[in-house]
Amino acid sequence: MGNIEKIVLTGDRPTGRLHLGHYVGSIKNRIKLQNEVSKAFYMVADVQALTDNADNPQKIRNNVVEVVLDNLACGVDPKKTTFFIQSQVPEIAELTVFFMNLVTFQQLSHNPTIKTELKEKGFVESTPFGFLAYPVSQAADILFCKANTVPVGIDQMPVLEQANEIIKKFNATYGVDLFSKITGVVSNISRLVGIDGNSKMSKSLGNCIYLSDSDKEIEEKVMQAYTDPHHIHVEDKGKVEGNVVFTYLDVFDEDKKSVAELKAQYQKGGLGDVVLKKRLTKILVDLITPIRTKREEIAKDPELVMNILKKGTEIARKEAKKTMIEVRKALKIDYFD
Amino acid sequence: MGNIEKIVLTGDRPTGRLHLGHYVGSIKNRIKLQNEVSKAFYMVADVQALTDNADNPQKIRNNVVEVVLDNLACGVDPKKTTFFIQSQVPEIAELTVFFMNLVTFQQLSHNPTIKTELKEKGFVESTPFGFLAYPVSQAADILFCKANTVPVGIDQMPVLEQANEIIKKFNATYGVDLFSKITGVVSNISRLVGIDGNSKMSKSLGNCIYLSDSDKEIEEKVMQAYTDPHHIHVEDKGKVEGNVVFTYLDVFDEDKKSVAELKAQYQKGGLGDVVLKKRLTKILVDLITPIRTKREEIAKDPELVMNILKKGTEIARKEAKKTMIEVRKALKIDYFD
Repeated sequence: MGNIEKIVLTGDRPTGRLHLGHYVGSIKNRIKLQNEVSKAFYMVADVQALTDNADNPQKIRNNVVEVVLDNLACGVDPKKTTFFIQSQVPEIAELTVFFMNLVTFQQLSHNPTIKTELKEKGFVESTPFGFLAYPVSQAADILFCKANTVPVGIDQMPVLEQANEIIKKFNATYGVDLFSKITGVVSNISRLVGIDGNSKMSKSLGNCIYLSDSDKEIEEKVMQAYTDPHHIHVEDKGKVEGNVVFTYLDVFDEDKKSVAELKAQYQKGGLGDVVLKKRLTKILVDLITPIRTKREEIAKDPELVMNILKKGTEIARKEAKKTMIEVRKALKIDYFD
Repeated sequence: MGNIEKIVLTGDRPTGRLHLGHYVGSIKNRIKLQNEVSKAFYMVADVQALTDNADNPQKIRNNVVEVVLDNLACGVDPKKTTFFIQSQVPEIAELTVFFMNLVTFQQLSHNPTIKTELKEKGFVESTPFGFLAYPVSQAADILFCKANTVPVGIDQMPVLEQANEIIKKFNATYGVDLFSKITGVVSNISRLVGIDGNSKMSKSLGNCIYLSDSDKEIEEKVMQAYTDPHHIHVEDKGKVEGNVVFTYLDVFDEDKKSVAELKAQYQKGGLGDVVLKKRLTKILVDLITPIRTKREEIAKDPELVMNILKKGTEIARKEAKKTMIEVRKALKIDYFD
């Protein structure tokens, strides 16, 4: 990045409480990054969530507080990271509308991430127009505060590339140097498998361990985890590949040596699932308990989260207004200035 | 409209000075409507103009004053009509983004007006995304001030129907009665042929008579007008259909009886084009001279137009803010209220 000040933007869609997939895929990165950069923003992406939940605004509203609670509980620090709500920074919508002229429909519909998500969401025949626009709106989310560092899952990289195309086009078209290239910080675990072995931990699949789950819920879920269906008796040889318990141990168990030994024993035969599941339960309980406890602590003050968001939104809007003055000048629509 | 207060929204894209096509297609209607309704808004559609002129913002900027001058000169009265600039009411962009979730890409791409315009503009293979969104943005243009009466050309009716679909969807989805149905006021002359006989008077075709043309320019243009190419000698029989001079006489000559007689004589033979063209020139000079004179008068004060726009934009923003409070409440994103 040379001499350019690093500014981070991250965020969550407020569609549900956050789970272990979010924790390893993005929250851990956020906590690391907030200590390394001069400015970090955390956005509650309610406008984006409405693109495919337009008919359920109450769900989105309810989850605004939930996702912030999850992040605060994990250690995203409002002293280091500015928390704000997307819809409360209307400059993002303005920027989206201007960026929409710098992208073609063909570029968006051929974007690999969009193509995949349209299929996943059943939107191929009937595509909410706002959803199709989300790479454009995401560029606006990042650029309203001139962020240039964005933690992303590997599957979201094409969307980030689209944002970089918009930046190039904007700067070239208007003869300015207003936005600088965005760098994606890809997490080494960008997608955690679900407890049922499904490739993605996802609320709609009911295969999540939440950061707010109780010890009992964690235990019950781990006990149902997908292992090797042919490993019936303790003495049977077992498969490690595709075995969710081992996948999770690889991610969460810091004692890599023991995990390697357990794998060998499992493959040879003579190691039961229950032993492994108890080990995993303990590790996850140890990870989640302090998060859940802190979450409950913070949630006791019902004003606290909203106050953090209100204060952060004010800061975000100041940045947005500064950026829009420059954008309006570039677009020559600064008539009254 | 029953008991509902009539609120009019009209506007022009600031892509060039206005011509006779605009005059008969919309300006005359505006002048009539401003005297009949309680509120009328005139929007300089700079954001819309940028959807297909993103690379030429200076052209758009220059023409903002020109289109307002044309309207003022024709008699659109800033005491009765609120003049404002679209880009200076950012709530329109916000509303656009929310409306985008209530429309599918498929609806937009199958809209007859959009299909025609994509072809006309050569956008079929490479479609600026913002251009595709223009029916949505137009719904926002109309609804930010709760307008319900919109003068339109017949070819724009499908875009208005799309706006009415958005209204229905918005009210139903959010269980509100926030927006009421828009009625299109279709001009009886919604499209004036160009002086060359082309079906549309259009700047890009170079076949326009402008509301700011001098007597000499008007005369020269009329003398070049397309008549009947087989009507070479005065004594030849001539065709009236497709003859631009007669088309214009039908529109602008108030002496309908004389026009009927001239048509009969032309068809029988014995009437030269020059006589007709002189008659048309006089009529158009009589129409345009007072407009041009008033235009030059107004243009003498370089601050005047900008002051009208500034004052009007303030009024428009007040309306926009009122509407957005209701929209935010409906979408349940009124977190801080």
